[in-house]
Amino acid sequence: MDAQVRSHIDEHAGEFFAALKEWLRIPSVSADPARAGDVRRSARWLADHLRQAGFPVAEVWETGSADDPGLPAVYACWPARDPDAPEVLVYGHHDVQPAEPLGEWDSPPFEPAERGGLLLARGASDDKGQVLFHSLGLGAWLAARGEPGPPVTLKLLVEGEEESGSRHFADLLRRERERLACDVIVVSDTTMWAADVPSMCTGMRGVIDAQIDVRGPERDLHSGSFGGAVPNPLHVLAALLAGLHDEHGRVTLPGFYDKVAELTPAEREMFARLPFDEKAWLATAGNSGAVAGESGYTTLERIWARPTAEVNGMWGGHTGPGGKTIIPRDAHAKLSFRLVAHQDPADVPAMLREYVARHAPPGVEVTVTVNGPGVRPSFSAPGSPAVDAGRRAMERAFGAEILFTREGGSGPEADLAEVLGAPLVFVAVGLDDDRAHAPNERADMALLLKGAEAAAYLLDELAARRAELTARRAGRA
Amino acid sequence: MDAQVRSHIDEHAGEFFAALKEWLRIPSVSADPARAGDVRRSARWLADHLRQAGFPVAEVWETGSADDPGLPAVYACWPARDPDAPEVLVYGHHDVQPAEPLGEWDSPPFEPAERGGLLLARGASDDKGQVLFHSLGLGAWLAARGEPGPPVTLKLLVEGEEESGSRHFADLLRRERERLACDVIVVSDTTMWAADVPSMCTGMRGVIDAQIDVRGPERDLHSGSFGGAVPNPLHVLAALLAGLHDEHGRVTLPGFYDKVAELTPAEREMFARLPFDEKAWLATAGNSGAVAGESGYTTLERIWARPTAEVNGMWGGHTGPGGKTIIPRDAHAKLSFRLVAHQDPADVPAMLREYVARHAPPGVEVTVTVNGPGVRPSFSAPGSPAVDAGRRAMERAFGAEILFTREGGSGPEADLAEVLGAPLVFVAVGLDDDRAHAPNERADMALLLKGAEAAAYLLDELAARRAELTARRAGRA
Repeated sequence: MDAQVRSHIDEHAGEFFAALKEWLRIPSVSADPARAGDVRRSARWLADHLRQAGFPVAEVWETGSADDPGLPAVYACWPARDPDAPEVLVYGHHDVQPAEPLGEWDSPPFEPAERGGLLLARGASDDKGQVLFHSLGLGAWLAARGEPGPPVTLKLLVEGEEESGSRHFADLLRRERERLACDVIVVSDTTMWAADVPSMCTGMRGVIDAQIDVRGPERDLHSGSFGGAVPNPLHVLAALLAGLHDEHGRVTLPGFYDKVAELTPAEREMFARLPFDEKAWLATAGNSGAVAGESGYTTLERIWARPTAEVNGMWGGHTGPGGKTIIPRDAHAKLSFRLVAHQDPADVPAMLREYVARHAPPGVEVTVTVNGPGVRPSFSAPGSPAVDAGRRAMERAFGAEILFTREGGSGPEADLAEVLGAPLVFVAVGLDDDRAHAPNERADMALLLKGAEAAAYLLDELAARRAELTARRAGRA
Repeated sequence: MDAQVRSHIDEHAGEFFAALKEWLRIPSVSADPARAGDVRRSARWLADHLRQAGFPVAEVWETGSADDPGLPAVYACWPARDPDAPEVLVYGHHDVQPAEPLGEWDSPPFEPAERGGLLLARGASDDKGQVLFHSLGLGAWLAARGEPGPPVTLKLLVEGEEESGSRHFADLLRRERERLACDVIVVSDTTMWAADVPSMCTGMRGVIDAQIDVRGPERDLHSGSFGGAVPNPLHVLAALLAGLHDEHGRVTLPGFYDKVAELTPAEREMFARLPFDEKAWLATAGNSGAVAGESGYTTLERIWARPTAEVNGMWGGHTGPGGKTIIPRDAHAKLSFRLVAHQDPADVPAMLREYVARHAPPGVEVTVTVNGPGVRPSFSAPGSPAVDAGRRAMERAFGAEILFTREGGSGPEADLAEVLGAPLVFVAVGLDDDRAHAPNERADMALLLKGAEAAAYLLDELAARRAELTARRAGRA
């Protein structure tokens, strides 16, 4: 059966890339208000495409409200004949990053070009190519099996605001919770370790931002007259920031690690098997001169599976040329905390406030401000039915062992899992080399076809795990 | 004899204030290039005045060079008949602070006005009034004693750039070292504790500025991709700044306290006798919420007699609105160190570099930059002949015990002591209430006359200490 899937995909590759190129020509830049019409056109294009692919339901869903209009998502659904079959929601996005600086593109960003097996265009990898391989995979599965419909209820939710902050996404999920109800969420918006090291992401870090403001005297003071005898807000801030980490590089907020899911030995072993070149990685890290961080963890563990406190900005006092002998009236810092399963961003403000209350000296006022609710971490345990299904599908597509990775950044995936109450599985074939968000974005065309193959096998693998995947249904609203 | 001095001063008070007002009408603002002509006019006025007062030598000394012109100082000399009499150099300045904001003056800054025993004008207290009382005091001494000349060789050096950084002062001192040679330097440019608590300053802190720059990755990094695994320059800087003080508020630079002259029990007792109202002082400190600083020292000791490290400014990373989840490429801080006798500002850069070398982690580049040579601390020990003479002269003028203070700021006085190799004595009658550097600067007219009295008695007191004061002459070049 795998051979039939493969030959269907090979036969229809030309058609697939022709359709993808048509879609890529629509500059669906969600961050640019002038492109709102293009984002709408992109949504309609995808809904039409999915309808032609056989989806009985394929709709454009507006988001936001009259006061705060959003950009449309696309929803499609192809129900399984068997109502007890697993319900699978595939998540991706059809909007793209701005293409600027245009001068750095070798070919125009919205005129797709092929070169040496690569497809060059804004969105080729992130995320149109990875959304579209699902319809090719589904077609291959149907053809190989000779079935009129998928073995699972297949839903797609393709967002139109991912590259501009997913502003209305959580609201949309809550509004459409019933139609989006599912047993598993398949996310196709991540990367593999390398073209020859196929892998799956099993989680993303969450994040929450905060600001610390220290206020001292009502005005800048002359350091000759007052220096050494009143608190200096810059000293207070420096001490608070320096104290955020202990000598082992651990974050000192009270209770910060209480809910952290520790890495299992199996996960650590899996990470250790990735061919990680620390020197090359340091070069990608802006030629940072050394690794640093929490004792007892490797670099990959630190960026993927350990929470952090980072100071993102800091200012106060005299910052212009020359010297100015003052004790400044105030000092400020912006911070962000990366979180891992099962930390909750909602817990962090209280921890930070307690930390500040414990350590701020008398004579200054220190306030903590938190902007927004932050983003939850997401995580799917290796060995869980969803991850297992994805891994097996990828193995069949690549004919190789699939390793596990995570991502250090944060995405809207955690909202999906949270609102819909279903586990995530990341099945994607992007590469770090794809230059997502940069000029000359590209996708490896052979990998997109592997993605389509994996998407076909995933239908089998998920259908085969019906019992485990639907066991949680009783608990669904 | 004191009664005669007093009655001479009373009789000539009108004349004295008329002359002072004439001088105050010249807006000798050294910081304003457009006022350079006025500064020159002010110098000529003073030289003429001193010549009329009997000084056989009274000259305007240009400063700087053709490439870097300065503003003129005034030099005057009235040699004692006895070549073994002490040589006394009186230091003051004839330039003034800018008068802005003009709208906040009750009367125009350069149109002297009298109100309730106060003389209002820019420079009334800082420093024209305090320079001029020396010629009235000298006249009173000559009249009371019926002598044709002073009992010491009396030199005056009245600078024209003090309010704009004394840029050419050290060079002038070196150039004119021979004519300025002296056994004691009298400085009349400080303040007393209060009109009813006459006191003498015995020292000023020195200062040196530095900047610390921390450089990490070549560009700002995404904290999702790299956070927790490479050094963050803001963390490095915060730790370096926080570590500048230990838990006792002591500066941790290696060797920082090695040369510090500890306060004697007598000095501490003297400071303790000053009627210090900490609550009122905190209000003057911009309503700082608490005192803070080095353990084991009072507030006055901390600001007058203990060295400090102060962060004056700090910046790095994202400082605009909202959050930005980056590890910034660099971080910066400006610092200043206040120094006390017998610390040398030239020692500080090496200490700071050693501190940074000991504490900066691998993976970042940390550099220390020092601007200029800094300013030395100045100090005259209570009980030394010069201070003793000044104290006795003040006691005779005020009919009260004279307490000792110091100043936390820094001035060119240390250069005088250093280049001329003579001890300093601060004889001055300014008040913190005089609003030097602020709108509505004023001088208490009765105190200026007390200053003249003290200047007269000082001639006696210095002449009486000839042996001790001239003992160091053998060592003079």
